[in-house]
Amino acid sequence: MAHSDSALYVQSLAGIPEVTTETDLPKVIAEALERYAIKVQFGDVLVVAQKIISKREGRVIRLVEITPSAKAQELALGLEKDPRLVELVLSESTEIIRAAPGNFICRTHHGFVCANAGIDASNVGGASNTVILLPQDPDASARKLRADLKQRFDVDAAIVISDSFGRPWRLGQVEVALGCAGIVAASDWRGLTDADDRPLVATISAHGDALASVTELVRSKNSHRPVTFIRGGGFEVTVQDGPGATSLIRPLEQDLFRRK
Amino acid sequence: MAHSDSALYVQSLAGIPEVTTETDLPKVIAEALERYAIKVQFGDVLVVAQKIISKREGRVIRLVEITPSAKAQELALGLEKDPRLVELVLSESTEIIRAAPGNFICRTHHGFVCANAGIDASNVGGASNTVILLPQDPDASARKLRADLKQRFDVDAAIVISDSFGRPWRLGQVEVALGCAGIVAASDWRGLTDADDRPLVATISAHGDALASVTELVRSKNSHRPVTFIRGGGFEVTVQDGPGATSLIRPLEQDLFRRK
Repeated sequence: MAHSDSALYVQSLAGIPEVTTETDLPKVIAEALERYAIKVQFGDVLVVAQKIISKREGRVIRLVEITPSAKAQELALGLEKDPRLVELVLSESTEIIRAAPGNFICRTHHGFVCANAGIDASNVGGASNTVILLPQDPDASARKLRADLKQRFDVDAAIVISDSFGRPWRLGQVEVALGCAGIVAASDWRGLTDADDRPLVATISAHGDALASVTELVRSKNSHRPVTFIRGGGFEVTVQDGPGATSLIRPLEQDLFRRK
Repeated sequence: MAHSDSALYVQSLAGIPEVTTETDLPKVIAEALERYAIKVQFGDVLVVAQKIISKREGRVIRLVEITPSAKAQELALGLEKDPRLVELVLSESTEIIRAAPGNFICRTHHGFVCANAGIDASNVGGASNTVILLPQDPDASARKLRADLKQRFDVDAAIVISDSFGRPWRLGQVEVALGCAGIVAASDWRGLTDADDRPLVATISAHGDALASVTELVRSKNSHRPVTFIRGGGFEVTVQDGPGATSLIRPLEQDLFRRK
């Protein structure tokens, strides 16, 4: 399993236990890699599901602790949603993009445009009645995990933190990169030329998102495989952590789909 | 290299010659697989770049043959684009979504929302002065290639035809599936339940798009590797060709971002 630009090997890891604020995440990941006899080397990538990062960082909220504002209560009526969830979504957002039943799309503090500000409410109404917020700074989370894995376990991997987002014109969700450390998430080919020596236009490759989306192919929604190992490929891994997945966020002034 | 739901092996293929309307595409693909000693088995996927499908289908247009309409000429002024290219984009589209310099986003006859109606104009102004349109029916192209590969070369692969699209709120492009045959492009998990027996919501996995986006990781923009082989993974490959990548197009009535 040598590194090749034109080949990629992907393995999702079983056996990661349920994560809480007490979990030693670098340790359980290092142990999972060991069970697969994977000796990580520079150039390898680990894609980690946002959910376990958020759980480790205590971003789990019990709805019973939330008192919805008047604005959240009013909005919740129209959206047919729990007003406490709406309150949380508003507190995580800088802008409501669309609000209709089944479609509550916001821009988060990070700049992500996604449903429910990325809050996972699949357990709302269940025994636990909790929701999970996105990490406060996913790039920082990725950098921390990378450093810990390297220092404590000699696991020298680039890190991608992923979550599934919908798309406005396509059905289904794809995983995208919320946080990165050590990979060039947005690989810029502008300035290079094509076969006829004409400049290449509009050719930034979203490698961070491509790495995230691979994970959809090696785990199913009700399996528990929140960590995926990737080796090979022609994307760029760096010694420095780099600008992270923030480089994949389209600046607000370039957004053509804001309501004026 | 056995099939596993939790592992994926990806290899982009070198040595595919320049494609024209005369090219025997199934033959050059079968020969490329042979050079890599890949014996395709049911469950494997081949992702093929739209560009070579279009070239094989004669969707290459010389701009000198196009006479722009008055509407195209007027629009071209504002867009700072070649009026003949604008004419072609209009003829390939059912709706202009956004029109501004650097941003000419249309809905194609197929239903895809993308820049320039998917027309590749990277060679405009070069010696050849040609542009490449999307295939007229990419799902049909995928079905035909699948059938030909199986009947003539005993290569039993599911087919994804891919192209790179931009995204409204994220920088960079990702490859998406324009056409599919033999894979469930939109895998529907709705109706299933989560760990707390609550119904899973909004969980259609865009496996067709995930398969397409992997290819970005194993080829660079100026390498010539238009075909990628994929083995393994937990997505669903079917004996029937199925509904194709059309199942990934969000129906018009669900589009929240149309200008009213």
